Amino acid sequence: MITDPARPVARRYGDAGAALGVGSDVIDLLLARRSTRRFVPGPAGEVDDDHVRALVAAAQSAPTSSNLQAWSVVAVRDTERKERLAALAGEQAFVAQAAVFLVWVADLSRARRLAAARDARVDAVDYLETTLIGFVDAALAAQNAVVAAQSLGLGTTYVGAVRNRPREVAAELDLPDGAVAAFGLAVGRPDPDEDAGVKPRLPQDAVLHHERYDAARADAAAEGYDAVLDGYRAQHGLDRQPWSGRVVERLAGPGSMAGRDVLRERLADRGLPSL
Amino acid sequence: MITDPARPVARRYGDAGAALGVGSDVIDLLLARRSTRRFVPGPAGEVDDDHVRALVAAAQSAPTSSNLQAWSVVAVRDTERKERLAALAGEQAFVAQAAVFLVWVADLSRARRLAAARDARVDAVDYLETTLIGFVDAALAAQNAVVAAQSLGLGTTYVGAVRNRPREVAAELDLPDGAVAAFGLAVGRPDPDEDAGVKPRLPQDAVLHHERYDAARADAAAEGYDAVLDGYRAQHGLDRQPWSGRVVERLAGPGSMAGRDVLRERLADRGLPSL
Repeated sequence: MITDPARPVARRYGDAGAALGVGSDVIDLLLARRSTRRFVPGPAGEVDDDHVRALVAAAQSAPTSSNLQAWSVVAVRDTERKERLAALAGEQAFVAQAAVFLVWVADLSRARRLAAARDARVDAVDYLETTLIGFVDAALAAQNAVVAAQSLGLGTTYVGAVRNRPREVAAELDLPDGAVAAFGLAVGRPDPDEDAGVKPRLPQDAVLHHERYDAARADAAAEGYDAVLDGYRAQHGLDRQPWSGRVVERLAGPGSMAGRDVLRERLADRGLPSL
Repeated sequence: MITDPARPVARRYGDAGAALGVGSDVIDLLLARRSTRRFVPGPAGEVDDDHVRALVAAAQSAPTSSNLQAWSVVAVRDTERKERLAALAGEQAFVAQAAVFLVWVADLSRARRLAAARDARVDAVDYLETTLIGFVDAALAAQNAVVAAQSLGLGTTYVGAVRNRPREVAAELDLPDGAVAAFGLAVGRPDPDEDAGVKPRLPQDAVLHHERYDAARADAAAEGYDAVLDGYRAQHGLDRQPWSGRVVERLAGPGSMAGRDVLRERLADRGLPSL
């Protein structure tokens, strides 16, 4: 058994014995991704427009449903705007400290404008399915940008909390009807002193099924995960609370959702009524 | 001006003059992605479990909201099951021809089981926000798998049409309450004779905004795209219909949605009522 815990796949699963039968440099890069929440400040931490353009070109290379390209991205560099967005997104200071905050937009407004120009209707935009297309298209694109950023030595962290206050975020970014901020992505040069590692994930057998979903097998595979993640958290000076308990707390009910229990109404305000 | 149309970024935008100021081998790989709908048949086209495991390890390395890991994946190899899924997904024959059909599942059922085990409730699962978390988590994960597949010489194509018939797909895969097929991914060895290229995307200025969304500037940038895509389609023997018209037709209304206008009700059947 291979037991070098420094191998990317071993770190990803927090399991010194984890191994893959095939691989590539790109897969090693993917396995080694971690979130970055501390960025190099000042001029040394800058991320120029060439870098942003490379990330967005990678993003546009992701698949998109029916080639609708139902997303847009707003690159925010202005310090005060980043601070206001950080405040709207659950007071997460690292949003303002990132060199660039990319706001990924589920965007059906372009389709509405194309339809208006030819006096046609795009009533499908009103349905949940189409909202999901916008969110999924944005996610596929953004994940390509994350991979591209990592390949350029940049660090990233997604910020789902831009959905806490969709109206205010839309006003800040001047989003048109039919467009909503799906999530943010803080991008910057990683502070080498940040105490952060590769967070171990569930054992593969907890998420990978063959032919049919097998809940009993998956749940049995997941049983040791609380201990693995506790070990990781202790190593990085974080409080130790079992993952399974955290999941249940995070999804307890409307009160645990940071205001996002009204997201459906807020999407309707944005012209996406999710019928 | 650089005008070698074979460069990955030039092909991605269908623009011989397109250029990036920074890059990496990984970004070139991302730029060069194309969809694969014709696969090598028989033993030569097989994709073994080691490859599937490498793709899923890459998928698990993607970010996930609050580490919920709210997705699962079902790897389907059985010929008859693939054929049934192909029929459910709009009669797309390439689904059955792929060596493996990966069905990505927005999965809140694990959270429900964790809650049940401790006699707790996870009422947040009932809200649209949490359904979106499941879909976005699945998309981020799947896109990492797409990149990993490409790095191993495999071809892929997403299949959103698994949302056409969510009940039947769930029954085929034995999905538990709280889990729904978000999209499929056909994976196989690309047939070298397939006439397919890198589909040009909208010019970058049509999707990338700075500080605030600027619809007039974005739409002006998009104006030449119909012609670019028509040129690509002519080159590959496809019918020429302007992209802007295709978008409007695709989103015309419930009748253009292949049954997905009732997706919200179908998600509710699956235990995801999208409140």
